[in-house]
Amino acid sequence: MKILLLNGPNLNMLGQREPGLYGSQTLADIEAQTGALAAQHGLELECLQSNHEGVLVDAIQRAGREMAGVILNAGAYTHTSVALRDAVLSCAAPVLEVHLTNPHARESFRQVSLLSGAAKGVIAGFGAESYALAVLWLARNLPR
Amino acid sequence: MKILLLNGPNLNMLGQREPGLYGSQTLADIEAQTGALAAQHGLELECLQSNHEGVLVDAIQRAGREMAGVILNAGAYTHTSVALRDAVLSCAAPVLEVHLTNPHARESFRQVSLLSGAAKGVIAGFGAESYALAVLWLARNLPR
Amino acid sequence: MKILLLNGPNLNMLGQREPGLYGSQTLADIEAQTGALAAQHGLELECLQSNHEGVLVDAIQRAGREMAGVILNAGAYTHTSVALRDAVLSCAAPVLEVHLTNPHARESFRQVSLLSGAAKGVIAGFGAESYALAVLWLARNLPR
Amino acid sequence: MKILLLNGPNLNMLGQREPGLYGSQTLADIEAQTGALAAQHGLELECLQSNHEGVLVDAIQRAGREMAGVILNAGAYTHTSVALRDAVLSCAAPVLEVHLTNPHARESFRQVSLLSGAAKGVIAGFGAESYALAVLWLARNLPR
Amino acid sequence: MKILLLNGPNLNMLGQREPGLYGSQTLADIEAQTGALAAQHGLELECLQSNHEGVLVDAIQRAGREMAGVILNAGAYTHTSVALRDAVLSCAAPVLEVHLTNPHARESFRQVSLLSGAAKGVIAGFGAESYALAVLWLARNLPR
Amino acid sequence: MKILLLNGPNLNMLGQREPGLYGSQTLADIEAQTGALAAQHGLELECLQSNHEGVLVDAIQRAGREMAGVILNAGAYTHTSVALRDAVLSCAAPVLEVHLTNPHARESFRQVSLLSGAAKGVIAGFGAESYALAVLWLARNLPR
Amino acid sequence: MKILLLNGPNLNMLGQREPGLYGSQTLADIEAQTGALAAQHGLELECLQSNHEGVLVDAIQRAGREMAGVILNAGAYTHTSVALRDAVLSCAAPVLEVHLTNPHARESFRQVSLLSGAAKGVIAGFGAESYALAVLWLARNLPR
Amino acid sequence: MKILLLNGPNLNMLGQREPGLYGSQTLADIEAQTGALAAQHGLELECLQSNHEGVLVDAIQRAGREMAGVILNAGAYTHTSVALRDAVLSCAAPVLEVHLTNPHARESFRQVSLLSGAAKGVIAGFGAESYALAVLWLARNLPR
Amino acid sequence: MKILLLNGPNLNMLGQREPGLYGSQTLADIEAQTGALAAQHGLELECLQSNHEGVLVDAIQRAGREMAGVILNAGAYTHTSVALRDAVLSCAAPVLEVHLTNPHARESFRQVSLLSGAAKGVIAGFGAESYALAVLWLARNLPR
Amino acid sequence: MKILLLNGPNLNMLGQREPGLYGSQTLADIEAQTGALAAQHGLELECLQSNHEGVLVDAIQRAGREMAGVILNAGAYTHTSVALRDAVLSCAAPVLEVHLTNPHARESFRQVSLLSGAAKGVIAGFGAESYALAVLWLARNLPR
Amino acid sequence: MKILLLNGPNLNMLGQREPGLYGSQTLADIEAQTGALAAQHGLELECLQSNHEGVLVDAIQRAGREMAGVILNAGAYTHTSVALRDAVLSCAAPVLEVHLTNPHARESFRQVSLLSGAAKGVIAGFGAESYALAVLWLARNLPR
Amino acid sequence: MKILLLNGPNLNMLGQREPGLYGSQTLADIEAQTGALAAQHGLELECLQSNHEGVLVDAIQRAGREMAGVILNAGAYTHTSVALRDAVLSCAAPVLEVHLTNPHARESFRQVSLLSGAAKGVIAGFGAESYALAVLWLARNLPR
Repeated sequence: MKILLLNGPNLNMLGQREPGLYGSQTLADIEAQTGALAAQHGLELECLQSNHEGVLVDAIQRAGREMAGVILNAGAYTHTSVALRDAVLSCAAPVLEVHLTNPHARESFRQVSLLSGAAKGVIAGFGAESYALAVLWLARNLPR
Repeated sequence: MKILLLNGPNLNMLGQREPGLYGSQTLADIEAQTGALAAQHGLELECLQSNHEGVLVDAIQRAGREMAGVILNAGAYTHTSVALRDAVLSCAAPVLEVHLTNPHARESFRQVSLLSGAAKGVIAGFGAESYALAVLWLARNLPR
Repeated sequence: MKILLLNGPNLNMLGQREPGLYGSQTLADIEAQTGALAAQHGLELECLQSNHEGVLVDAIQRAGREMAGVILNAGAYTHTSVALRDAVLSCAAPVLEVHLTNPHARESFRQVSLLSGAAKGVIAGFGAESYALAVLWLARNLPR
Repeated sequence: MKILLLNGPNLNMLGQREPGLYGSQTLADIEAQTGALAAQHGLELECLQSNHEGVLVDAIQRAGREMAGVILNAGAYTHTSVALRDAVLSCAAPVLEVHLTNPHARESFRQVSLLSGAAKGVIAGFGAESYALAVLWLARNLPR
Repeated sequence: MKILLLNGPNLNMLGQREPGLYGSQTLADIEAQTGALAAQHGLELECLQSNHEGVLVDAIQRAGREMAGVILNAGAYTHTSVALRDAVLSCAAPVLEVHLTNPHARESFRQVSLLSGAAKGVIAGFGAESYALAVLWLARNLPR
Repeated sequence: MKILLLNGPNLNMLGQREPGLYGSQTLADIEAQTGALAAQHGLELECLQSNHEGVLVDAIQRAGREMAGVILNAGAYTHTSVALRDAVLSCAAPVLEVHLTNPHARESFRQVSLLSGAAKGVIAGFGAESYALAVLWLARNLPR
Repeated sequence: MKILLLNGPNLNMLGQREPGLYGSQTLADIEAQTGALAAQHGLELECLQSNHEGVLVDAIQRAGREMAGVILNAGAYTHTSVALRDAVLSCAAPVLEVHLTNPHARESFRQVSLLSGAAKGVIAGFGAESYALAVLWLARNLPR
Repeated sequence: MKILLLNGPNLNMLGQREPGLYGSQTLADIEAQTGALAAQHGLELECLQSNHEGVLVDAIQRAGREMAGVILNAGAYTHTSVALRDAVLSCAAPVLEVHLTNPHARESFRQVSLLSGAAKGVIAGFGAESYALAVLWLARNLPR
Repeated sequence: MKILLLNGPNLNMLGQREPGLYGSQTLADIEAQTGALAAQHGLELECLQSNHEGVLVDAIQRAGREMAGVILNAGAYTHTSVALRDAVLSCAAPVLEVHLTNPHARESFRQVSLLSGAAKGVIAGFGAESYALAVLWLARNLPR
Repeated sequence: MKILLLNGPNLNMLGQREPGLYGSQTLADIEAQTGALAAQHGLELECLQSNHEGVLVDAIQRAGREMAGVILNAGAYTHTSVALRDAVLSCAAPVLEVHLTNPHARESFRQVSLLSGAAKGVIAGFGAESYALAVLWLARNLPR
Repeated sequence: MKILLLNGPNLNMLGQREPGLYGSQTLADIEAQTGALAAQHGLELECLQSNHEGVLVDAIQRAGREMAGVILNAGAYTHTSVALRDAVLSCAAPVLEVHLTNPHARESFRQVSLLSGAAKGVIAGFGAESYALAVLWLARNLPR
Repeated sequence: MKILLLNGPNLNMLGQREPGLYGSQTLADIEAQTGALAAQHGLELECLQSNHEGVLVDAIQRAGREMAGVILNAGAYTHTSVALRDAVLSCAAPVLEVHLTNPHARESFRQVSLLSGAAKGVIAGFGAESYALAVLWLARNLPR
């Protein structure tokens, strides 16, 4: 049973980018530890990061055909991409929106999410634990 | 180690209130199953529901002194109560904002949360599983 | 057959509060005369006034279980309470929104009603006659 | 003692137009039954429907000279006509704004009423009963 | 040399309608005295009042073919009629927008004029003198 | 098989009105050439132009009973008439919204269409060809 | 001569709640020192704090009957409570709105005060000295 | 009988500043010709131009004590100066707001006038003739 | 003579994505049938779909050099892409904006089109027939 | 120890300007009585009034170098002057914003204060007593 | 060849005013070093600073007659002065808008510039180097 | 010492695209002449243009690791890309935002820059000279 961990623009900069805000773990660290947690629950985690909106749309479309679930941190595209929203809406697998930080405690343009109305649910503000909670939900709720 | 499960206005009507939207479980069902999950992880869950904004503020203040964490579904007050926001801000224990449904897929006045900027994190849209994820976060992250 | 007449904050000040605007009748006068009209039509009127939002929510929930209809003048909470809106939405009995004055002829913050979209109907601007019309609708339309 | 029942644009389509929303009664049915109720209370009901804003303005001006009251369902012009508002303001007879449906439960452009601030009062959401309540108010309150 | 004095909705109620605001002169009085002033300056004044937006549009179109100028008090349609704006834009003769009162000292929906951007100029707030000033401008500026 | 070509306010001024924007053809030219195209496809075109909102509402109501389709250029009423929107919504025949120019390239108040949400579809910006495309759609899609 | 010192939600947390912002004095400290100043000027200070909007409304109504003035720091309810505004409006005694901090230097939702338009006057930004100035005004201006 | 012709910022640049928009007359030309017209009607015109908001406020205050009327073209300050509005409100002599161009046909920030609600009336869009009409109104209406 | 049929994000999901809204035809079906219609009129249709905004911009730039016209359904990028707008503006060939559904009957963020002000014209709401009408316009209007 | 009493535009008109609103005292009266109160507390009051924004900015800059405090009633500039805000921000002495009336009970453009976020504190609505309270705060709090 | 360096309100406080934000150089330092750079490129720099909006307008008008270019840091008036915008528009010499800080990284009311649409160009955010770049542009581009 | 000149969507069309607005130079011309100026100052200029938002984000991330500075004209993405803003924020090298034209003199959607708050500084409106000024700043300020 495969799930996709999809990270959007600038998340490859984790560890370097405003560590006071985003923590000192790199994306590779988070992918490894989220993958380990998934494996403990019998789920295989595929990881993809891209700065390209179109690559993210392509990936969600493919996941809808090939995967059991998607954990999506769309980064900055959360706030601007109707294309991602449409991709989430047409995806057969559940898509969980996650954020490291709590967007509502930041700039006003980060307080609008075009994805939230289309996602299965939202988990935000727990740092890398946001990804862990998403894995746990999939482990508890995916039909097997 | 005690945590507070605090539910706001009209959540005592669960099971009767728009079951198509909120599911057919009663609040008692959810409290019982959330309490059981907490117990499995060595946490004691105290449950309180009130339709009164002031009672909720009082409860959060008390929890800040006596509890290790708060799981808060403030219901309709999520969208209107600056008083709850201030209570969350001054609470020493982490407060997790949860919602059964995804407010962003509903009426526009439910898309503003005065609490999200003050809470530790937000979990929304997973039905009763939203409470379960909150318990799991507390179990994984509370210092012991 | 019982119906609830529920008045919100500051309506206990009628007669003293801006009589040029609200008239010189006290709330007791209006409750008496509305009760008499109800009795003429075979309806028993129970009266409750509170300045507490939570008490009003509790009362609507109880009325949904025990009464045939609710006449609700939520006063200032009309414009700010999502909690009352949710209570009205989950109330099995019809809830009629009434106002003594015409909110649309007053300050702009009184021109938004969070209740109107949830109530059975709205009657506003007729002074104490607003309550009378609500009684007459219940008398003409409640199933007996 | 004569009163005017004035219906605005598209209300002549009642029965055919979105019956799920507006009911299956025709305008002729409603005019007949409202007229009968008026007659029971010693009031003569004159009925007029027009799709023309100017005709409605003319009618309200004439009613101000010749009638004891006006029951006005201005339909779509409720939301756009400052001319009707001015006509209501200068009308010597009381004008009661009525609606079949509850505009606050519909599209946002139907939630603004230019008339409400000028009318004697508003009755909305009770279907054909909205007209009946307006007749009853006139019967109870017109000086005779 | 003919000019058109065109008055919009409810201006036929002058003298009766809120005399504190609009003065006690009737429209007939104003038309007579404006016509007399025009005659002194060698201009023939044709007068038309209508509550119908379409009649006003028709009249402006006709004036564009047959008259040397238009004095237009569009009343309430000033604030809502794009159709009148388009008629003014396509009118070969100069159209002067006049108002008895100063719309900027009144309700906010009267502070938007769809006509001002299309008219030759605007004269507002001088009571019946607004019409007189418009006649004087035409007398001083029409090519002869 | 009859279809209605309905033109709104000021479209009778075509050829004279801002020819740089609207072209030099008159409305009669366009009606003739659109009628010829319709006839080639076995459709009879009835033409009506009016500056009166109410006349347009009446015409759409009648077309719903007697015609197979409506080509509607509501001109300025596109942006202000909820009454036309309601008429389109209750019309049994498909109503195609057309515009000579592209309203989105013009003033901001022309960028809101109250009709678009109710019409079968929209064709805008092609000059007189907008009418031709509407005829072609009807020819290709009306059931025969 | 009695005056009421009324504090709203979360002000009982003073000293603990964001001391960098609100100072390190507790509410008890402030009540004692404000009471002492009042006594120096021959005024008796009664103190009440509540997190419940309804309790605050009740208290203002009672003060209108029994006290010579009210010093009101409504805390978070300042920004959301129309009910408190109405209570202030109907209170016979002068109500002085005070704030420890300057709400205009804080979040935007704290920059709207529903009370300011109803209060006798406003004193904000002076910390505990805000209460002292309110006492001094009462001492200088209450009729004796 | 003295009247003040008061011109605001950049109006001293007339003739040089965007002549396509403002015409090729200089301010001296306009002052001379307006003064001549005033003299014909027995009025003495004093002229003042300043780029300083405070100088304009001072001048209106002085005119309230010494003059029979003020013709005010406040230029850019029309749209930004509450101070000028207050000066106009407290001026005992009538203040007529004039503009060379029609502000409603220009940028959106020129479509708000803080003065219009305070001035006796408004005359806009007639070029230098706007000043002439203001003189004529004063000639016809000042008590003598 | 070559024309480009350019489809944006998620349009490759047609047939699977919300078929109740978008119909059951696949994009391949529509491309085939649109290509056949084009061929009947002597036009060669090249088809391209991409989820990548940059690919769409590249394609429009290339079409400006190599093609006689562009039929563009930009999907979600219609509402967010200034880059596409600029590409359309600088494209030598006419670009026709088409939509399967009527965006004005959907969510509010789909009611803004950044492209409409730059495109030759707009055709929306006719399902796959929207593409056919675009082909017919090109066939009737391209210079040959 | 010197403090500056700085009054802005039109405050020199006190006593004449809308006495129903601002009272019948002149500015000289208020300056005298405020100066006397200051003297009682060992403070020397320098008074300045100007209608010129730049003069007020200059004065605040000078006071920052030479005075112990500033009492500022900026009148109309309160609502429009970013320059005054910046001057207050860079002033070493505390600046107290005072108003005779309560701006929140007046026109909407008076409900925005650009100064409040920069001032030490705000005192509004107490008439001339607002100045007195400011003196008392300085007397109680200036370091000596 | 002379150019004007014009600084607006509170820029005379540089060095003292929020040095963390604006740096520790005084205005005299910046004027000296900017003048030296200008001299190196054969330009004579005249410097003027004023807190008075009218003085700045006067200076730009004079520079239009006497100078080859203007470097303008209008400080707070950037955001509020339509008068300065009009002065820039009518100035024959190029006006370069400069800012020490980047207004877009500051409060929202500093993110609107009334000048940018009228200036030749904008340079912001480089501290004193912003002035240097303006000199360099003039040196490279003024016709000689 | 290497710097990156990064141009966004449609800037490869320079010379062809609206030459009246953007000038007749091609991007190659500008890159050559900017590179030459850089070389004169001992800086090596690498040039990249892309229509793809993701490519631009990738390039800024790479420049943060490998270059001494970035000159960024993000074209249309300036107004819509939060992803670019985040990339600029996390870039170790200074990023200078440049524009050929002055966005504030154009359409309203070009008047918002998501980048300005994150960039080192902004230079806009000087045509190709905007790039030159950016090079000069780097030459004067990069540490060597």
